Amino acid sequence: MPQRLKLIVAYDGGAFAGWQSQAHRNTVQDKLEHAFQKIAGVRVRAHGAGRTDAGVHALAQCAHVDLPNQRLSAEHWANALNASLPATIRVLRCQYVSQNFHARFSATGKLYRYRIWAAPILPPHELGRAWHISAPLDVDLLRGATKKFVGTHDFAAFAASRGEKETDSTRTIRSVRVRKTGSCITIEVAGDGFLYKMVRLMVGAMMRVAQCKMDAKEIAEQLKSGRADTSRVVAPAEGLYLIKVWY
Amino acid sequence: MPQRLKLIVAYDGGAFAGWQSQAHRNTVQDKLEHAFQKIAGVRVRAHGAGRTDAGVHALAQCAHVDLPNQRLSAEHWANALNASLPATIRVLRCQYVSQNFHARFSATGKLYRYRIWAAPILPPHELGRAWHISAPLDVDLLRGATKKFVGTHDFAAFAASRGEKETDSTRTIRSVRVRKTGSCITIEVAGDGFLYKMVRLMVGAMMRVAQCKMDAKEIAEQLKSGRADTSRVVAPAEGLYLIKVWY
Repeated sequence: MPQRLKLIVAYDGGAFAGWQSQAHRNTVQDKLEHAFQKIAGVRVRAHGAGRTDAGVHALAQCAHVDLPNQRLSAEHWANALNASLPATIRVLRCQYVSQNFHARFSATGKLYRYRIWAAPILPPHELGRAWHISAPLDVDLLRGATKKFVGTHDFAAFAASRGEKETDSTRTIRSVRVRKTGSCITIEVAGDGFLYKMVRLMVGAMMRVAQCKMDAKEIAEQLKSGRADTSRVVAPAEGLYLIKVWY
Repeated sequence: MPQRLKLIVAYDGGAFAGWQSQAHRNTVQDKLEHAFQKIAGVRVRAHGAGRTDAGVHALAQCAHVDLPNQRLSAEHWANALNASLPATIRVLRCQYVSQNFHARFSATGKLYRYRIWAAPILPPHELGRAWHISAPLDVDLLRGATKKFVGTHDFAAFAASRGEKETDSTRTIRSVRVRKTGSCITIEVAGDGFLYKMVRLMVGAMMRVAQCKMDAKEIAEQLKSGRADTSRVVAPAEGLYLIKVWY
């Protein structure tokens, strides 16, 4: 009987071509699976709570693997994995869980953070870690825009196609919180689930409102009609952080 | 008559082999001089307030150049330089100054910040930006150690040789401030001037005290004797930030 190990993983999205396994192997999933293979000598499959895109960061992605015939304690697994993984990926915690737990299907919600650097110059240390917007932003308009997203809506207008057919594009956004500290604007979006590129399309729309290029009312209309704006903007991956998965 | 331009420059130390010009050209000084040459068509020399080592960061390094026959405003220079420089170097401000101003010799003091990440695991986003210490640290002992450095002392025991002969190793440390926020310990050192690797050797000694490997009294003894501890530690470059130059 295999044992299921749950992992909390942080990574610097700029160092990888996203979460999901690809032929060239420079993805977080590939690195994790390779580390397990090196330690346990067997090929395991790492199931992530969500597939973050290239450039998207994680402070606490969640994953699980099934280990045949394991002998290491959960703490030893964390140490052994960190010794084998590149320093741009860290396993923060490991825990044995029941076979009922599934990193993706058991998740009841996720919290994302999006960072915007609103100033004429992007400090070198913010490179790859925030969306640099040098045009003036109206934070009050931004806060107004966030309210339009909260609740249960059909988010078809705020999703990109991954080539798969989404059967249902209804999702619930629990909260959208905006914080401004100096030049840094942080938007935290909590929801029960997210469509492909949904947070980045939401932030793109919020920024259009904050730049007076769009009225916040149009967000509500797009949620109602399900029709994407032809001039919609996808906020860049490097500003996005997966910071919590709820179970 | 050349016009002297003062620049405030930020850079990610991890991207460069330090400030000072070298044959391979991957230094901040080389990049700046190359940008000036590209814009003005002439070779200028960039004089920095201090020569930061490879890996050392700057939030506000100061430099000056002499521009023959310039026609651009100071603000235009900042924009033109940023358009030409890699994004890991940013010119934050430019200002025309008198020929009496010298980035190095007019400096009356400098402020350095040193960042330590004191926890078992270094988060991926702190890589290259802090000294990771997983052993327990006693912050009270650390604060005690900082006090030994404040004042005017002969810092011969806390300096490395650059191959040049230092005529006088007496320096004045105005303050050493310690702040702890979660796992991050920040040490800010203000002084009228610094010897080669002085801040990193000071931090190295403070960490030995904080790890109970050395008594704080030994710092005072080394300052008095001028003899370096044979087991002295140089704190790694990546935790060090030049954050202010006073004139």
